[in-house]
Amino acid sequence: MKKQSLTYLLTGIIVLSSYTVSAQDSVLASANGIKVPVGYKNWRVIGVSHRTDNNSLRAIVGNSIAINAVQTGNTKPWPKGSILGKLVWHDSQHPHWDEATVPGNLSHIEFMIKDSVKYNATGGWGYARWKGMKLTPYGKNASFANECFNCHKAVENNDYVFTKPAELP
Amino acid sequence: MKKQSLTYLLTGIIVLSSYTVSAQDSVLASANGIKVPVGYKNWRVIGVSHRTDNNSLRAIVGNSIAINAVQTGNTKPWPKGSILGKLVWHDSQHPHWDEATVPGNLSHIEFMIKDSVKYNATGGWGYARWKGMKLTPYGKNASFANECFNCHKAVENNDYVFTKPAELP
Repeated sequence: MKKQSLTYLLTGIIVLSSYTVSAQDSVLASANGIKVPVGYKNWRVIGVSHRTDNNSLRAIVGNSIAINAVQTGNTKPWPKGSILGKLVWHDSQHPHWDEATVPGNLSHIEFMIKDSVKYNATGGWGYARWKGMKLTPYGKNASFANECFNCHKAVENNDYVFTKPAELP
Repeated sequence: MKKQSLTYLLTGIIVLSSYTVSAQDSVLASANGIKVPVGYKNWRVIGVSHRTDNNSLRAIVGNSIAINAVQTGNTKPWPKGSILGKLVWHDSQHPHWDEATVPGNLSHIEFMIKDSVKYNATGGWGYARWKGMKLTPYGKNASFANECFNCHKAVENNDYVFTKPAELP
């Protein structure tokens, strides 16, 4: 396929996707005013992880600013506007492969948005999480972000980000 | 951001990405003639998995035909042209979170391409794998695909696909 045709094709897909995601305008904002980022399901994979303390599998994705930062090695600190997303599923055992853990039900989706001024109180990152397929905002009031921040302090030297971008050719 | 602006922005990103991926034209084809699919790093996530038999973490991604099949529940069988990709990393322990397994070095990337006629001998799927960051083709001759197929026979009732698409809102 020629490059131009590929571009048109992909543009069509993206346009279609942006309309699909618009349906999430109806999802409630987080208590700190953050909304589910538009188009996050189209974002490129930065990493994956498996946690045995809460038995969950994660895909870590990033918006275009974050991906560009990864590709240029510009993540200390991450540039303004970077958004990292975690898509988190409860562990499930693969029915035909005993040693494989695969996604069960969705646990939650969560995002961290870089803006050193706006989110200065929480290390320069704004945090938000939505639970389950109904995308119920996590946290009763805006102070929930302190809970996120307290945990992320463990990786202060990595600009408060746990994820190390995975190696890809 | 208005939808039109978003479209232009995303088009720009995709164009840029397609140029980046073109660099992989230099990667050797698999012994059965399959090439690394263009743009696979932009594909949407279908699932993730963690295998303890070979200590690896995986992101499973799909091309637009596969993603459309997932969204419309049209995966038994998957439509012609569907491509599923697995990006596979060796396990590593997160340096600041003992109970988290995260990607270490890249193990390999692998793809299965649906074409019931062309790949009739291996269940309607063409298989290919490239090892490590140098993307060395796996398999000395085209018969390597039998090894893939023999393993995938365990999920014959799922059109030879291990991955069950993960729940996403």
